[in-house]
Amino acid sequence: MKILLLNPNTSAAMTERMAEAAAAALAPDVRVTPLTAMRGLPYIASRAEAQLAGAAVLETLAEHQAGHDAAVIAAFGDPGLVAARELFDLPVVGMAEAAMLTACMLGQRFSIVTFSRKLLPWYEDAVHQAGLHARCAGLLAAEGEFRSVTEVQHELESEIVALAARAAENGADAVILAGAPLTGLAARVGAAVPVPLVDPLAAALGQAQALVRMGARAPASGRFARPGPKPATGLSPALAAWIEHREGEPG
Amino acid sequence: MKILLLNPNTSAAMTERMAEAAAAALAPDVRVTPLTAMRGLPYIASRAEAQLAGAAVLETLAEHQAGHDAAVIAAFGDPGLVAARELFDLPVVGMAEAAMLTACMLGQRFSIVTFSRKLLPWYEDAVHQAGLHARCAGLLAAEGEFRSVTEVQHELESEIVALAARAAENGADAVILAGAPLTGLAARVGAAVPVPLVDPLAAALGQAQALVRMGARAPASGRFARPGPKPATGLSPALAAWIEHREGEPG
Amino acid sequence: MKILLLNPNTSAAMTERMAEAAAAALAPDVRVTPLTAMRGLPYIASRAEAQLAGAAVLETLAEHQAGHDAAVIAAFGDPGLVAARELFDLPVVGMAEAAMLTACMLGQRFSIVTFSRKLLPWYEDAVHQAGLHARCAGLLAAEGEFRSVTEVQHELESEIVALAARAAENGADAVILAGAPLTGLAARVGAAVPVPLVDPLAAALGQAQALVRMGARAPASGRFARPGPKPATGLSPALAAWIEHREGEPG
Amino acid sequence: MKILLLNPNTSAAMTERMAEAAAAALAPDVRVTPLTAMRGLPYIASRAEAQLAGAAVLETLAEHQAGHDAAVIAAFGDPGLVAARELFDLPVVGMAEAAMLTACMLGQRFSIVTFSRKLLPWYEDAVHQAGLHARCAGLLAAEGEFRSVTEVQHELESEIVALAARAAENGADAVILAGAPLTGLAARVGAAVPVPLVDPLAAALGQAQALVRMGARAPASGRFARPGPKPATGLSPALAAWIEHREGEPG
Amino acid sequence: MKILLLNPNTSAAMTERMAEAAAAALAPDVRVTPLTAMRGLPYIASRAEAQLAGAAVLETLAEHQAGHDAAVIAAFGDPGLVAARELFDLPVVGMAEAAMLTACMLGQRFSIVTFSRKLLPWYEDAVHQAGLHARCAGLLAAEGEFRSVTEVQHELESEIVALAARAAENGADAVILAGAPLTGLAARVGAAVPVPLVDPLAAALGQAQALVRMGARAPASGRFARPGPKPATGLSPALAAWIEHREGEPG
Amino acid sequence: MKILLLNPNTSAAMTERMAEAAAAALAPDVRVTPLTAMRGLPYIASRAEAQLAGAAVLETLAEHQAGHDAAVIAAFGDPGLVAARELFDLPVVGMAEAAMLTACMLGQRFSIVTFSRKLLPWYEDAVHQAGLHARCAGLLAAEGEFRSVTEVQHELESEIVALAARAAENGADAVILAGAPLTGLAARVGAAVPVPLVDPLAAALGQAQALVRMGARAPASGRFARPGPKPATGLSPALAAWIEHREGEPG
Repeated sequence: MKILLLNPNTSAAMTERMAEAAAAALAPDVRVTPLTAMRGLPYIASRAEAQLAGAAVLETLAEHQAGHDAAVIAAFGDPGLVAARELFDLPVVGMAEAAMLTACMLGQRFSIVTFSRKLLPWYEDAVHQAGLHARCAGLLAAEGEFRSVTEVQHELESEIVALAARAAENGADAVILAGAPLTGLAARVGAAVPVPLVDPLAAALGQAQALVRMGARAPASGRFARPGPKPATGLSPALAAWIEHREGEPG
Repeated sequence: MKILLLNPNTSAAMTERMAEAAAAALAPDVRVTPLTAMRGLPYIASRAEAQLAGAAVLETLAEHQAGHDAAVIAAFGDPGLVAARELFDLPVVGMAEAAMLTACMLGQRFSIVTFSRKLLPWYEDAVHQAGLHARCAGLLAAEGEFRSVTEVQHELESEIVALAARAAENGADAVILAGAPLTGLAARVGAAVPVPLVDPLAAALGQAQALVRMGARAPASGRFARPGPKPATGLSPALAAWIEHREGEPG
Repeated sequence: MKILLLNPNTSAAMTERMAEAAAAALAPDVRVTPLTAMRGLPYIASRAEAQLAGAAVLETLAEHQAGHDAAVIAAFGDPGLVAARELFDLPVVGMAEAAMLTACMLGQRFSIVTFSRKLLPWYEDAVHQAGLHARCAGLLAAEGEFRSVTEVQHELESEIVALAARAAENGADAVILAGAPLTGLAARVGAAVPVPLVDPLAAALGQAQALVRMGARAPASGRFARPGPKPATGLSPALAAWIEHREGEPG
Repeated sequence: MKILLLNPNTSAAMTERMAEAAAAALAPDVRVTPLTAMRGLPYIASRAEAQLAGAAVLETLAEHQAGHDAAVIAAFGDPGLVAARELFDLPVVGMAEAAMLTACMLGQRFSIVTFSRKLLPWYEDAVHQAGLHARCAGLLAAEGEFRSVTEVQHELESEIVALAARAAENGADAVILAGAPLTGLAARVGAAVPVPLVDPLAAALGQAQALVRMGARAPASGRFARPGPKPATGLSPALAAWIEHREGEPG
Repeated sequence: MKILLLNPNTSAAMTERMAEAAAAALAPDVRVTPLTAMRGLPYIASRAEAQLAGAAVLETLAEHQAGHDAAVIAAFGDPGLVAARELFDLPVVGMAEAAMLTACMLGQRFSIVTFSRKLLPWYEDAVHQAGLHARCAGLLAAEGEFRSVTEVQHELESEIVALAARAAENGADAVILAGAPLTGLAARVGAAVPVPLVDPLAAALGQAQALVRMGARAPASGRFARPGPKPATGLSPALAAWIEHREGEPG
Repeated sequence: MKILLLNPNTSAAMTERMAEAAAAALAPDVRVTPLTAMRGLPYIASRAEAQLAGAAVLETLAEHQAGHDAAVIAAFGDPGLVAARELFDLPVVGMAEAAMLTACMLGQRFSIVTFSRKLLPWYEDAVHQAGLHARCAGLLAAEGEFRSVTEVQHELESEIVALAARAAENGADAVILAGAPLTGLAARVGAAVPVPLVDPLAAALGQAQALVRMGARAPASGRFARPGPKPATGLSPALAAWIEHREGEPG
């Protein structure tokens, strides 16, 4: 099984970190292809940035999805998730949605803990898009300063652990440690929090594997069937070709 | 008062049509600036296309919003609406949201009637994004073939009127005639439908005027405050400058 | 365009104040007719009082609506709104509903700030009647004493501003300053609050103008069509005549 | 125990019918005082009429509630229910709310069947006001003509029974026969419908008895505590006295 | 009228206490038959225990329901309520559901106060099962230690009263004193709390009487009709006989 | 990884069938232990039966869970799921919940198709318990007669396929083929339905693997922490020992 692991941020260091962390969540017969967005922001922290990242996700998938069994959009907030599901035929999994659905099997309510207040509006929107607000006991963000988004999970580790514990006290049955920069933190600090932690990357890879092993086919009709061909202006070549149904043609 | 009327489709003919129709919905002291998206599809009909159009909306606003009091995103489905509200300081109005909020003052439940089944998933998403699904009595689409999206409101007029009447019979207190290509139809056929019709362009212009006259300020904090500066890669010059907070600088 | 501005309280001073404040929210071609309820309470502060005021609204409209393009019920809480929409043919706008719908275009969640705890149950009911509780981040009331309802916006200005700022901190993207006695306060103190303020009277006038310019017709069938004639006992002459469909007849 | 049975319609014949039907639903130690509204319409069929009837309910209760243990507002739609609960200290029960709450113990979903389409908007509003729309499987109305509202339960009996059976087939676990003119029908035709029928008058009397036997006290604070004294203009003498807290004083 | 009062806990002392307290809530012509579960836990405090208690409820009803007009499941949390309604023909009332439905007639929102934090998850589930979460202003539990579940209502009386008062301050219009061990406390301390208190046992008995006096029949079809006969393995003799439709046969 | 596959029905033939079908959904390093309930009904088809089966699930888990990494409750409807999660420390997955959560990644709305109308009330309850009713486009059941529950997926194959196709036409983006007896049918008929099919057993096994690979720990506090020890009466020895926290002790 081959899973495309698409980082919608432009930071290659983050992609590398996630590719390393992925190993623990894969069955012996699964491989991932890590990819970094070519356009956009080093890390997404707003709905405007997510709008742009979603377009970059479609461009990247159009170019690289061939030969994969599933794709994971590796940014909490799931930029371009619905659009990608509609446009392409392989299963597409978002880290936020996968983390929340997984958390639903660990209890009645989950909380989301992240490393910066700036991310909260975007993450709140992700909760609503998933239709799971009634299951969400709240979103909490660290207040601490940090120097590097790559190191933030170490810099703010104790504050994040304290927030997760507080979330548990306030009624969360499980806590999602949200944001690609926190990948791997759940495994490291799980013992320090009294309720189960959800690692969104591990959850997304678990869900991608589940979908592939179940053998779900792409829809031939309905809300998520691939749209018919249409002329495109000013888009990347691979995406324009895909939208115009010329993806098999010579360039 | 100056309102930017932004067509996120690449069809200039549609923009022109809307600019003409706008006149009837404007107070004597209001002018509109019509604009057409430079990138994307001739008309948007899917969530994938809306994802791309939303990015184009941000590019266009970054380049042209200066000097306007408000902007209208003139495609039912409101591509880029939340992102634009977050990124820019002027009030931004979407045709779908404005039509639905307006319809809420005409009754308890509205229905949405449009000219093609392909549009339904996108429009349904717009209803949910506005949080108004409990007020929506259903979405109906014409089944008839049409030759030109510019002429579809004439080609399918009788079927659309029949659908609006059926919606009324099934419990809609008001009917939205949705999709930019239907602009102006409500005024023409209102007498043939027993409940009030909502023209989304007229509604959006009405809401934009209401917001400007009320004098609402842009937020300095919270979910819709402008994000801080951030380095951007591969975006249009005006949008990159705006995101990097260099919009006042010489190019 | 002529808009009937109906104060359902019996306080003529308040009506005068609102008529003055209205000017700023009107396009050059719009005029308002201010009216004060002849029966009821000097200011409404409970659901029981709103029940009675709603009946007075119907009496007043029956007597004065002729010759107007729209009516505004100028008490936050919207006494008699649904009944008036059903009974009469012109568009009827409520200050609470209009303020909330307008706030929905300024962000995801609004808060409502008012000058007395006594008003909260009635205002909460208005939020639920509008079906917008999921968009409401909370209702806050000043605790301070005040001598005059006419002067309360000055007496408690600093507390109300502080509450609005607190609402913003707690997640409101926009704040409605609710209650007819606060009319005009939003314009005066907007700069002191980090999120946009909504003035319910300005919002209601904006919505009334939007409805009239869009040209929505009265329904000929359905939930809001005018009920057929029925004999009435013990009602005011104009209202009895309207209900009995004798409104055109000589007295 | 003494229960005030208040008919908000002006039809004394209907009051008499309900007073007779009440007997079967009362414990041996309970008596009812039947009353008819002095103002309003012979039978309420719209939200406008309910707005006026609600005011009449308050007038009537102010004059007659003394010496009773509970009051029943005997019109499906519950005009003035919330206002009456707020204003007076005895438990007040509405026929619609009581019927729906009772139905909730007979299954997951109830349907409402009535004798005229004109009543549906008002009854739908009652379902929403009770917050029980998720439990409502639908509202159905007879299409047949009838000569007399007093005899309609006989004139349309077979159509109403057929509608109730259809509601059961479509997923209703219980069926409410709604509208004061249908009082007593449930007992007569229960055997002909495969799911339990709810008689709103019997339900309301059952709930009133349950509240009285449980001994619930009137609130001294909060949303339903009696409002403080306030000057009133143009109201009935008893109601004005009650609102001004002069109810114990000599006239 | 004969009502079966079934304690799903194995504590006979609690059953006795409830049988005594029942008297005040019964009309002169009503008698109760108290019963104690033969299997399970001395008092239920978790969903797992409720799952087991629900099975015990079915066993007990199968053996004892004959000759009764209604049954009350006398544990807040309502173990086996839906199953019992489906399986048996007499009306079955749960203490939690009955308390909440009754509270809905005393105000807009109720709170639930109980004597131990351990009970909260189970009670929260009961609120959701009743579909009344939107009406629930919160659940509060005493923190104090207590020696005996039989005496807890005396041991923690002052803390419970304080919690009920706090619930009222925080917006509850009525407060349910939840948990069989608190039976009778509401009547004793009602004067000390500014909003009405609901005693779940009194509420359940009130609702059972209301259902019986209304004369609702058992369903012959639909979601709550008795399932057809089916072979059973390893169940109690009476329950197996009932499930196999051999209940009338000699043992 | 070892997964306990627990059939809550007493039919060993069904367990065997599911054990065979499981293979296709397992990674190379995963094994299942199939188990059949010792008490209850040959197949569960009502909420009463599910109440009893849930108790049997707890008994079986208490006896057999040791040494497993996760457990799957292999009946659509998930008897005992919440109770098992609370009582035991390993992840527990229900077929209905897992199928619905999986379907949420394949589209906006799913439908559930099953082989008998009798199952619908129980399955509807499962949808509500999962909090996913807003994502459910409806439940459909075959009307055809069948001789054997073991063979029903062959006997009614064409009707079930037709229902799935109809569900797709009516707006389902994915269709769940529900009920243990349909295990394996999705893989066989997927090509005949235009939207993806979900096999609940495959989904449950996928979710169990995802939870185990993510390494979620059991909660030490909160709603799903194991309850403290408590004396038990009349329960199976292993369950009593577990509830009394004597599970490590010699029998």
